[in-house]
Amino acid sequence: MSERARVIGTSVPKRDGADKVTGRTRYLHDLELPRLAHGKILRSRLPHARLVRVDTRRAAALPGVLAVITGADVEQQPFGFVKDQLALKVGTVRCVRDEIAAVAAESPAIAEEAVALIDVEYTELPAVFDPEAALRPGAPLVHEGRPSNLTDLRYQFSHGDVDAAFADADATVEGEYRLNFVTPACLGTMVAIADWDSGDRLTMWSTTQVPFLYQRDLAGALGMSGDRIRVLQPPVGGNFGRGLDLYPIDIIAALLARRARRPVKIEFERVEEFVACPTREPCTIRLRTAAAADGRLLARDCHVVIDNGAYVSWGSTTPYVMLSTVAGLYRCPAARFDTTIAYTNNPYSGSMRGYGNLESTFAVESQMDELAERLGIAPLELRRRNATQSGDANPQGFVIGSCAMEDCLDAVGGATCGLAPPAAGWRRGVGYAGMFHVGGGARIYRSDGCGAIVKLDDFGKVLLITGATEIGQGSETVLAMIVAETLGVPLERVDVVNSDTAVKPWDVGVHASRTTFIAGNAARLAAEKLRARLLEMAAEELEAPAEGLAVADGWICVRQEPQRRIPYDRAARAGHLREGGQTLVAEAFYDPPTEMLDKDLRGNVSAAYAFAAQAVVLDVEEATGVIRVRRIVSAHDVGRALNPAAAEGQIHGGIHMGLGYALSERLVVDRGQILTASFMDYAVLKATDMPELVVRLVESMDAEGPFGAKGLGESGVIPVAAAVANAVKDAIGVRFTELPITPARVHAALSARA
Amino acid sequence: MSERARVIGTSVPKRDGADKVTGRTRYLHDLELPRLAHGKILRSRLPHARLVRVDTRRAAALPGVLAVITGADVEQQPFGFVKDQLALKVGTVRCVRDEIAAVAAESPAIAEEAVALIDVEYTELPAVFDPEAALRPGAPLVHEGRPSNLTDLRYQFSHGDVDAAFADADATVEGEYRLNFVTPACLGTMVAIADWDSGDRLTMWSTTQVPFLYQRDLAGALGMSGDRIRVLQPPVGGNFGRGLDLYPIDIIAALLARRARRPVKIEFERVEEFVACPTREPCTIRLRTAAAADGRLLARDCHVVIDNGAYVSWGSTTPYVMLSTVAGLYRCPAARFDTTIAYTNNPYSGSMRGYGNLESTFAVESQMDELAERLGIAPLELRRRNATQSGDANPQGFVIGSCAMEDCLDAVGGATCGLAPPAAGWRRGVGYAGMFHVGGGARIYRSDGCGAIVKLDDFGKVLLITGATEIGQGSETVLAMIVAETLGVPLERVDVVNSDTAVKPWDVGVHASRTTFIAGNAARLAAEKLRARLLEMAAEELEAPAEGLAVADGWICVRQEPQRRIPYDRAARAGHLREGGQTLVAEAFYDPPTEMLDKDLRGNVSAAYAFAAQAVVLDVEEATGVIRVRRIVSAHDVGRALNPAAAEGQIHGGIHMGLGYALSERLVVDRGQILTASFMDYAVLKATDMPELVVRLVESMDAEGPFGAKGLGESGVIPVAAAVANAVKDAIGVRFTELPITPARVHAALSARA
Repeated sequence: MSERARVIGTSVPKRDGADKVTGRTRYLHDLELPRLAHGKILRSRLPHARLVRVDTRRAAALPGVLAVITGADVEQQPFGFVKDQLALKVGTVRCVRDEIAAVAAESPAIAEEAVALIDVEYTELPAVFDPEAALRPGAPLVHEGRPSNLTDLRYQFSHGDVDAAFADADATVEGEYRLNFVTPACLGTMVAIADWDSGDRLTMWSTTQVPFLYQRDLAGALGMSGDRIRVLQPPVGGNFGRGLDLYPIDIIAALLARRARRPVKIEFERVEEFVACPTREPCTIRLRTAAAADGRLLARDCHVVIDNGAYVSWGSTTPYVMLSTVAGLYRCPAARFDTTIAYTNNPYSGSMRGYGNLESTFAVESQMDELAERLGIAPLELRRRNATQSGDANPQGFVIGSCAMEDCLDAVGGATCGLAPPAAGWRRGVGYAGMFHVGGGARIYRSDGCGAIVKLDDFGKVLLITGATEIGQGSETVLAMIVAETLGVPLERVDVVNSDTAVKPWDVGVHASRTTFIAGNAARLAAEKLRARLLEMAAEELEAPAEGLAVADGWICVRQEPQRRIPYDRAARAGHLREGGQTLVAEAFYDPPTEMLDKDLRGNVSAAYAFAAQAVVLDVEEATGVIRVRRIVSAHDVGRALNPAAAEGQIHGGIHMGLGYALSERLVVDRGQILTASFMDYAVLKATDMPELVVRLVESMDAEGPFGAKGLGESGVIPVAAAVANAVKDAIGVRFTELPITPARVHAALSARA
Repeated sequence: MSERARVIGTSVPKRDGADKVTGRTRYLHDLELPRLAHGKILRSRLPHARLVRVDTRRAAALPGVLAVITGADVEQQPFGFVKDQLALKVGTVRCVRDEIAAVAAESPAIAEEAVALIDVEYTELPAVFDPEAALRPGAPLVHEGRPSNLTDLRYQFSHGDVDAAFADADATVEGEYRLNFVTPACLGTMVAIADWDSGDRLTMWSTTQVPFLYQRDLAGALGMSGDRIRVLQPPVGGNFGRGLDLYPIDIIAALLARRARRPVKIEFERVEEFVACPTREPCTIRLRTAAAADGRLLARDCHVVIDNGAYVSWGSTTPYVMLSTVAGLYRCPAARFDTTIAYTNNPYSGSMRGYGNLESTFAVESQMDELAERLGIAPLELRRRNATQSGDANPQGFVIGSCAMEDCLDAVGGATCGLAPPAAGWRRGVGYAGMFHVGGGARIYRSDGCGAIVKLDDFGKVLLITGATEIGQGSETVLAMIVAETLGVPLERVDVVNSDTAVKPWDVGVHASRTTFIAGNAARLAAEKLRARLLEMAAEELEAPAEGLAVADGWICVRQEPQRRIPYDRAARAGHLREGGQTLVAEAFYDPPTEMLDKDLRGNVSAAYAFAAQAVVLDVEEATGVIRVRRIVSAHDVGRALNPAAAEGQIHGGIHMGLGYALSERLVVDRGQILTASFMDYAVLKATDMPELVVRLVESMDAEGPFGAKGLGESGVIPVAAAVANAVKDAIGVRFTELPITPARVHAALSARA
């Protein structure tokens, strides 16, 4: 038996795929419980108002209503990233998402009818919808108790002599980039089901993607201890970061269930999903870049203004990631970064795939092209000259291990090759953008670890209980592959359990493209322990020392005499089914060798870093401004492609989301009101809108990653908008600094130029 | 901190109690699934017949019917203890329980209607309902292919010179004891829910109590591999051994679900539960006992004839346990044992609490009283003189460790103390019976082990994943206590998960009173490993060596300076929430140091043995034959009472079941038809029928048991009928050798004597 990989590196269908496409998957939405009641939430009509009176009497009197609650009649604790909101608002509402009351009833229809019967008397307050306006003297205060609308969050960083670099530069560029609200538009809306037992223990079925932090945060909001909450995570129809915060829906479901003394399910309808689902945060990025005549970057200087909305959420912390691109996308010896994060009466944001990095990459890569033009260097060549290399330590102290940035840049060259020329009246452009992201976890919490338990039964079935969370990204599949490869057993013999905090070992959650790397390493370590014990059992059967045995393709053999072999499951049974027998269970916990950022935002936050480059080829119709993307070539340093098809799938999905961000998606928030509340209005790209996608997986074989892999979940989405803007500039000579680049905007720009 | 037990030895309410009494428990019956279909089974009208035609066309045409299946149109494999039946019978039906067809429909009502529309044409065959008649030449063959109705099961044992002992004896007694059908009469009927996924993997929600063996057996019946079956075990309303075999209900649910392509639930109604639930096996025991003049037992000679019913089940293997009482209840130097197990056209039996031991104890203890009378020795004194002692090895080679048989006998003396004398017309009797049973597992399968996984989270919550199965016996509670005591944490911080074969480690299942002992030891071992790692974490925090630390009441302290202490959960968090952190997960597997019985039925099958004695005080009304039990004193060598209230509860429940067996319960099977099919006809004792119960827990501190404990689950039920019969004899001078001892029978006996 050779030691080559049997499972790793093969393209295996996602395990949840068949059930999903045949309609068998039981999503959170499908879940039923005996005596299940249905909850609905009443939200504010106004973006800023005093609540004068909330009269729930008519609602409570409706037959079939089981409970009606307002902030006045439940016990709740402030929650959120800085604990600045209550789930059910008391006294003041600060955005149209604000929850005023909630109803539990025998059916969703009755609950909805009851919500409509709640009378709310408001006194409208002056509101503010722009962060810069919010900071002007005399602006209405979103939180009346605070001295101003400035939040307490600020991200300041400085490395090297930025001012001197700008003074000495051969070329400098600067610009202001405006990024708007977009929403993940998950096909599965948010759902929370809450169920109390007689011992006042709570079971929650939730769309959370950080179940152990959720346990803690929900407990805080309910004024109980986290160990009394069990979190179950049925399949979700997309999440994309939406599940990183705790939201009022979860708390309200728990409060309603407690009041109704029945399990309660709250399920957002589509309109509510557009109104109340956390968005990507809107921001304005002011960026300056300095370079030498040969194209070497000298410094970047960046200031980000963030529309925080009414409450602080993880969405307000995106500068943490923006900084890493400003300081780390390409070699940049000096960098300065600062933020202004202000409360407004807009809906607040949340975490969303690529979180902060799409925005800063848009700014940074727009300026890379401008510098290239200014210096007369080809865009790809300029990037190559500045490409990060293995062994680099960047201004924040990120230590770069495996790195194939240059290979990625090379791999996206010649992107137009073989394409028919544009039709008459259309102009073609090619744009490039690179990407830098964490690829080996991100220690934003004191532990960035994940646990794994592996057991092997008498049938030879292997079960991995992982701390990881599956939100459709394919973690079950890749983790099963890692276990199968490590143990040397067929992939179909490995199952994965990952959806119950009672059972699964701890994990931070699914974010920062960390699951394959972190949970993968944990699974690998546990499987290695199990393999050692399996080989000990086999040693007895084969009468050979365990050190001399190998396991592959389900057989355990004596390395030197491969014909002396037994099926691995026979070894397991022989070790178990006898007097003094043992079974095979092993566990491991993997916490990567990383540091939390210090107060100066320095520290090697990830155990590996991911790199990518994209080329976008598009044609613009001059008469109409219509953009037709023809091809996207996306090259990714994935460390190692454990499942190439799944890796490609992640990148395809990311490009779809990034292209929507670039070209069509915008959640229109007008004076605090959300105007795009259906898929008719909110233009997610359809399958037919997608261009040809060419994915190139570049393998740098990371030393720390499981079988060499690095994180990939967010890489696809990050550079798209920047590359599109550069391609549009290449095509028609117009630089767009605001997204989305819609036909109307292109047309207006072309008209203005003409 | 002292090392005394904090949790062990305290009376703690059962964890499932509050939810059960407040109606919150979600039993298997309550379970809903999206698209759940409902199944019903058509059974044979006749106890023995050829199936000429099964016409399902009208059933299949009924609106709402999703699938109709017969043995002719599904793939199935023989199953059962000797694989002598198919779930859906083909060609011949052999008892009225036999399954001919099944329907899945949108509702139970539609399924029932459809079942009624199935036309079955039978040719009735001659039938046989008595095992002795079944063996006569020319008797109708239950299985036409076999040479006779004798099964292939036979239990033969011989030790010492039995014939010489009888020849030399000062006293011999002999008798024939007739035990009838009884049924567990669980409040929760049998249920099976089957659900296939798109990968042809099956999830079963079942009343099984041996989920890992069930996985194997169900797979065999369906012609698939066991690793493709996941077994979930929601709370059941009683089981009492019913879940030890695989039954057609489970297989048929799976076959229906496969055909309907939807999840299918089959739930027995009460009538069906009486007809199709496995019973305690009916048997005739011929026993002879020889004793010396001083009361010393010299030998026993026993032959058991068992009515096997139409198919062999675990119920047919009860002689295995009968033998252990014939050879092991009291010191008995010589023993001979043989069986005749014959097929009949009666319903077949299954395993039922105390399995075999109630029957043989009834015979053995009836004869102990007869010998006492014959030899003029007081009944208790005779038993004392023969009491098993620690250090004994019995004829089968059972090695007796802890043993407090004599103390138990002493503890039931003076049972009438303080009771008012019987009313006029009533005669009082006192009867005694002892009991011998396995108390440290029973290696009837190659492994008698159980696995455990323990994890401790950042909140200080401890989770035990045990292989054990909770069927209402309180295993969750006692296992949590063992873990809490071992770790030194408060009991309420320990949760237990035990109901999913995907997640839980292997275990044989719940039978043979083994869970506290075997699963308890596994839990203890895993918790000990976890404690060691926790103390290592604490050692760093407390700056003291781990060996010098102790943990109790949730605090970890330096033994020599108890004021240097930290909460245990702080130690866990400190060890976890840092760079290079670790979490606390540990696993263990415990397989007791025991042997399987060899072909001669010898071997030390259990790691500990349980002993008990009961005294029954009852009054008999001479005019009517009515028996009123006044008091039962039940003394049990439990090793150690880990949870005295739970131990008492087990004994109370056992006595209730044993008293019903003695006095009132009988499943009347007449020419193969079941006549008692409701709680009106089948007389389970009501709460008001129960006498005063006095439980005495005798602690012999078993060296191998967890904290000294031994098994207890079956001890309460075993001796009751024997003690009742002895008490009736004492009261009115009539010895009953058949159960139940109903007023009619007593009255008849008294009339006959008069």
